[in-house]
Amino acid sequence: MDSTLLEVRTGGAFACADLTGRITEWLRDRGDGLCNVFVPHATAGVALFELGAGSESDVEQALAALLPRTEGRWTHRHGSPGHGADHVLPLLVAPAVTLPVLDGRLALGTWQSVVLVDPNPDNPERTVRLSFLAG
Amino acid sequence: MDSTLLEVRTGGAFACADLTGRITEWLRDRGDGLCNVFVPHATAGVALFELGAGSESDVEQALAALLPRTEGRWTHRHGSPGHGADHVLPLLVAPAVTLPVLDGRLALGTWQSVVLVDPNPDNPERTVRLSFLAG
Amino acid sequence: MDSTLLEVRTGGAFACADLTGRITEWLRDRGDGLCNVFVPHATAGVALFELGAGSESDVEQALAALLPRTEGRWTHRHGSPGHGADHVLPLLVAPAVTLPVLDGRLALGTWQSVVLVDPNPDNPERTVRLSFLAG
Repeated sequence: MDSTLLEVRTGGAFACADLTGRITEWLRDRGDGLCNVFVPHATAGVALFELGAGSESDVEQALAALLPRTEGRWTHRHGSPGHGADHVLPLLVAPAVTLPVLDGRLALGTWQSVVLVDPNPDNPERTVRLSFLAG
Repeated sequence: MDSTLLEVRTGGAFACADLTGRITEWLRDRGDGLCNVFVPHATAGVALFELGAGSESDVEQALAALLPRTEGRWTHRHGSPGHGADHVLPLLVAPAVTLPVLDGRLALGTWQSVVLVDPNPDNPERTVRLSFLAG
Repeated sequence: MDSTLLEVRTGGAFACADLTGRITEWLRDRGDGLCNVFVPHATAGVALFELGAGSESDVEQALAALLPRTEGRWTHRHGSPGHGADHVLPLLVAPAVTLPVLDGRLALGTWQSVVLVDPNPDNPERTVRLSFLAG
């Protein structure tokens, strides 16, 4: 298995960071297998959705409705107000996804991107681990 | 790694399409390994739950409550009213799951089925990719 | 592929059972590969989040808000009142996650634990399947 770490800049606000291009680049010439995308953080997740047509803000608003950042709502308290919500995010948006790779290419659908979802304003830099198991 | 595409008819309404039988058939005689089930669409997901006891409509109602198809709520707009909600679905219901296979059989629990969840009335036919990595 | 079953005591109330130590133990000396954690139950899921700082009760409250255990709300009815909600849980909290293993160690972040999420008070004992595919 080959494995590498990507450094991803997510900045100081809610972020949907597109990982597709960097994963695609890393997989080139690898043949067939499974690519595991793993976020080693407790307040971020990885998801697949369409970018560029408005879903980034829809995702942000959906998460704000599902896990409100209301001060006092969460038992887990530190950092920014409502940060306890970020600690529940991985329950709904897992920090791991495993994707099929055929002839060195991610077998994504036309409208799918691999996205690091990071609601956390306190961590402007994140790490993502890519692992490839050939088959 | 072996990989194949299934064509799945989901029709013109919310659908929970049972994939279990076709995955089981495809895995026969393959030995031990991991089976990746991947939906190459931006408005569908794959989930494991019990079928035949009412959870299909419970899943539909839960998604309607969590991601309301209210016109005007979503930035991403095209197709049927509220279709922007479908584009957020993969955030909560990922389009990929990887399952253990022992002696050519999915190691599912008694009440688990592998289900394509497709809220989208505009795409009556869907594709699902199965990949098997032997170990 | 190596595979084993863990028996996990979750008791008669909502449970977040930490699996990290037992997975870590089982993986020791295995080298590099992917570890699949799979829950063969229709009313439980597996998630990664921080334990010990309050997120366990935040997870319980978030799920109670997202999937209310209101009697009469769910079509799927048997067992404890509101148990139909437990059957929808795997839609949001999948019963499978695949994690990278490097040199026999789970490549988790500092604050991540692997957690069996079991809202179901009717099943005090659960099973978890671990599978390791070396690469």
